[in-house]
Parts: sequence; structure tokens; C-alpha cells
Amino acid sequence: MKAIGFENPFTLDQGNQFKTFQLNTPSPSGHDILVKVQSISVNPVDTKQRLLPVEQSPRILGFDAVGTVEAVGNEVTMFKVGDTVMYSGSPNQHGSNAEYQLIQENLVAHAPNNISAEQSASLPLTGLTASETLFDCFNISYNPDDNKGKSLLIINAAGGVGSITIQIAKYYGLHVITTASREETQKWCYDLGADIVLNHKEDLKQQLIEHDINEVDYIFCTFNTDMYYEKMIDMIKPRGHIATIVAFNDKQDLNLLKPKSITFSHEFMFARPIHQTNDMIKHHEYLKDIAIKVEQGHYQPTTTQVLNGLTEDNLYKAHQILESQSMIGKLVINI
Amino acid sequence: MKAIGFENPFTLDQGNQFKTFQLNTPSPSGHDILVKVQSISVNPVDTKQRLLPVEQSPRILGFDAVGTVEAVGNEVTMFKVGDTVMYSGSPNQHGSNAEYQLIQENLVAHAPNNISAEQSASLPLTGLTASETLFDCFNISYNPDDNKGKSLLIINAAGGVGSITIQIAKYYGLHVITTASREETQKWCYDLGADIVLNHKEDLKQQLIEHDINEVDYIFCTFNTDMYYEKMIDMIKPRGHIATIVAFNDKQDLNLLKPKSITFSHEFMFARPIHQTNDMIKHHEYLKDIAIKVEQGHYQPTTTQVLNGLTEDNLYKAHQILESQSMIGKLVINI
Repeated sequence: MKAIGFENPFTLDQGNQFKTFQLNTPSPSGHDILVKVQSISVNPVDTKQRLLPVEQSPRILGFDAVGTVEAVGNEVTMFKVGDTVMYSGSPNQHGSNAEYQLIQENLVAHAPNNISAEQSASLPLTGLTASETLFDCFNISYNPDDNKGKSLLIINAAGGVGSITIQIAKYYGLHVITTASREETQKWCYDLGADIVLNHKEDLKQQLIEHDINEVDYIFCTFNTDMYYEKMIDMIKPRGHIATIVAFNDKQDLNLLKPKSITFSHEFMFARPIHQTNDMIKHHEYLKDIAIKVEQGHYQPTTTQVLNGLTEDNLYKAHQILESQSMIGKLVINI
Repeated sequence: MKAIGFENPFTLDQGNQFKTFQLNTPSPSGHDILVKVQSISVNPVDTKQRLLPVEQSPRILGFDAVGTVEAVGNEVTMFKVGDTVMYSGSPNQHGSNAEYQLIQENLVAHAPNNISAEQSASLPLTGLTASETLFDCFNISYNPDDNKGKSLLIINAAGGVGSITIQIAKYYGLHVITTASREETQKWCYDLGADIVLNHKEDLKQQLIEHDINEVDYIFCTFNTDMYYEKMIDMIKPRGHIATIVAFNDKQDLNLLKPKSITFSHEFMFARPIHQTNDMIKHHEYLKDIAIKVEQGHYQPTTTQVLNGLTEDNLYKAHQILESQSMIGKLVINI
């Protein structure tokens, strides 16, 4: 099978080091399924993983896939050959930048039946990150009525994770406040259901106060956690909860969390598959819920750019676009 | 009324600076009740607050009280004159080191009806801290069956907060692992219900492994958070939750939380009353539940030392004992 990867970590200014490899198509056993990949998406995590030492060459990235089940292991119970599925996967195995991929069934769900593969490919990684942040970190209720009156601030919400978080949070009853600075990103946030969009080029706390909001219950940071650490602590309610997906550059003063008894989570969607936790089935369940909500018309996929053909050039171009940090929604490549 | 306090912050090696003051006995209005204090306890927080600048002199400390309702404000609904009550209170008002104290009713519960005031005085501050850590930070279930199979490690569990946390956690279904190094503190932990007691003078992770435990779901640190920060991250499960009540001396690397997607809480029991949050009634509810469990025989009070008479000498002596950091359970002063 064809796969696009690389042999050594590289920065984009070194030129395009992606290469095409011919690998043996794997056979599924146990709870694994073999998927013929149709569409993948490229995430910021791909650009970060591209810089890490390669433990097993070639390194095949790709943490979103939609495709058709080609074969199933002897213990698989949830999927059958021919099913259209979606998943994110795990960084400690070959990714989705390939014609075929093996994946554990409890990380997989059926793709929504009313949208295309290139649309569904926008959902897994971002949807899992959003779901874990809301349900596992913040412990919001699965009953939207219980969450009424609670507020969530999403820092930099027009990117991939922010775009699906707006929708899930809104569906589950939260009052959703986002930040975005450009006219098009602000419109994008409102279109996805944000109640209030603040401009992160201006003073956020002051803008909250202008909306008669002193503090919020939850803050989810998807951009430069160092820059926002103290600002988030200033804007969170007593006993509120902050989560981030962006690693810090500097050490921080955890005592700042004390006066308001604040809780802080470092959300990392790969923790479950990397550590093979007992509750990996949560990934199946979150993706299944997202697919149902798409089919019911509650969520929309967030694909905004599509490249056709899994080639070295397209993958390099996709990484360039991701590193520009100006993406609205998600970039998808059709295989 | 008589109250024991001080005019300027002081360290114990400056000698006894506690003085007796004659203050006007306050009158309750609104939701306040006036309590004639019978027993108080002294907590580590008293020794820390004694070092802070005095904003309003005299500074009257004391964050645990059991006493009799002497008068009630016109909006009080939960208590009547003559009731025996217990509470912790808030550092931004006069504390319980006095003959009488005003307190908001939603921070108060009836004391258990089967134990003495000097026994009940061990419960409020530590019980609230334990309850907030377990239910608000860790979000454990109120249904013990839901918590079965989950494990809690309490670092340094023989102190006041640890002693009641063992009991509440055990009642609500957690597998309770504690640390203690002396024979008498280890016995104390087992007597209160700990399933396993580790020696914190030895390697904790290694001892866990010897008990066939690789990682735990929750860790609650009641001693030197800097020293235990990385050790706790090593011992916690993926997506586990760490809480502390001890302020840090140094900045810390929050990225260490990322690989396992760990959540960290800085528990601070005074956050609700200081910020006058909408859910202060939680303090009433937690204390009420503790009183019920004591009456049912599930929890035992943790008073281990009693001094008779609220005097300058006794208060100084109590602060000396607390600062020795060798307390087992709680020290109580009868007024």
C-alpha cells in the first residue's frame, strides 16, 4: 500500500522531505479493523509530531480518517466489512496518511450517514478533544438542562478544536463565549452557535464586563497558554475550571489557582490510546454521539479547505497552511 | 464579650503576642446567627493567618466552632435559638476565638447529637476541605457504588484534613491509600479505615507496586506540594486528578500534566465564603452530611488533644503544637 511519511524530523524551511513509501498492507487481528482510507485531515499535532525524533522509520502521520472497513479481526464486534467509519487513532502507530490503516475498534465510530467523507474527516480529533474537555475535564452533564446558566469561554475558537467545541458546548446547554479577531473568524464563530464573540486583540475581561459578565464557569484555551494563564485566572469564577490543549513554554505559579480554588486540566486526546486505558471505549462513544448529532442536524462538519490526492506535495502544502496559524475550521485531503 | 487576638502579625519566637480584648457582642441581622461558642479547634491555617498583615485590628482568628445559637437574624430559616451548631466560617471576618461569633446560616449545620462540643469541633474545617476535594474537585459520586474500584492516595493522612478525608472517602466507596511514617500515625490511619498505609520515608511508587497497584485515580496532597509534585504525576493514572491544600514554594512545569492528561486542583475551603459565591449552601450541606454520618456511627470525630479555657496561653500553646507539624488528628480548646 502507498503511504506518505518521512525518515527524519524536519522543519518546513528545509524543503519538502515527505516521501512516498510502499508498505505491506497490514492484516487485522483481535479487535483491530483494517480501513481503506478515503479522506484524512491534517491537524496542528501533525506539524508538532513532524519535529519529533523518528523511532521507527518511516514515520507515517495522520490523526483523522474516514474510510471503509476492508477487513476485521476475529474479535471485532462493532463493525463489519463495508461500513464507513471515522476515527482519530494514536501517535504510537502508523497514522492515516496511507491507503490503508489498522485501528482498534473501540477508537472508531460509524461516520455520519448524511455527509461526505471529506466532511466527516473534520470531526474525529477535534470532536474527541472537545468532548474530553467538556465531559471528562469539566464534568459537564449529558443533560443539557443541567448545564443551563453555566458559561464557557473558548480562547481562539475559529480553529479546528474551537469550531467543534462551540457546537458541542452549545448543544449541551452552555452559554458559549469565544474569542476571534478577524471579521471572517468572528462570523464563523457566530455561525457555529457562539452567543458572544470577543476580540482577543482587545482586553477580554473588559469586554466580558461590557456584556454584564464578571466571570465564567469554564475556560478552554486553544492558543498560547502562557500568554493567557493569568488572564484566564482573572476571568474564571471561584471553583471554576480551566483547560488547555497548548503546551506551556515557561513554568507557572500554581499558587495563583488557590484564592479561587481553581482546577486546571491539560487536555491531551492521545492519553487514552497511548496508555491503552480501560476506558478507551469513550472515544467510540464520543464519536458516535457526534455522528448522531450531525445526522440530526445539530452539528455541522468544519471542513473549509480540501486538497485532492494524498501526495507529497499536498501533505507539504497542508503542513504549511497549518503552520500559518490562520486556519478557519479544518483542512482535509482526499486520498 | 471576650476575644483573644493580636494587633500585629508575629512569629512564635517573638513570644506570646496574643492579647485578650473586650469587644461589643454583635447582633445578628439578615441571614446571620449569633453563636455562643463552646469549643473551637486550631488549624494550620490559623498559624499562617497569624503571619499576614492585620487589616482590621484586633485580628481574631479561629476557623472551627461548636456552640449554641443565642440569637438569629430576621431572615434566618434553618436555625433557632438554643440549637447546637458547628461551622468553619471565613477569614474575612472575626473568627471563633471569642465568646460569641456572628456567622451566615448557609455556612452552618447542626452539630451531631451524639458527641460532645469538643469532639464536634474537630469536624468543620477539615470536613469541608475533605468534602470539597472529593465532591467538587474529584467529582466523585454521592452513590458509593459508583466509586467502587476507584483509588485515592492521601499524602500525609494522619493530620486533621487527612483524618476526616480517610473516613469520607472510605464511606463513599473509594479504595483509600494513605501515607504515614510513624507507628502511631500508621495505626491511626488504619483505625480510621485506610485500606493501605504507605511509609512516606520510603519510595511510594515502589510500595504501591508491591501492593499490585501501578497508579491511582486520585491523589490528595496535604504536605509539601513541591516535594510531591512530580512523584504524584508519576503515581496518577492517565486522566487522573491531583489536588493539594498546600501552597507551592516554587513555580512548576505544567506540561508534566500533559502526557497523561492530568487535572490539578488547588483546593481552598475559604474560596466560597470569601467570594460569597451563589453556592455557599454547599458548606451547610457538607456539614449536615458529616453530622448525619457521625450520628450513624460511620465517621468518628478526630479530636486528640483538648485544652480547657480560651486564654492567651492556651492559644499560644496550640499554635506551637500546630507548628510542630506532628499533630495526629485535631487540637480543640474549650471556651
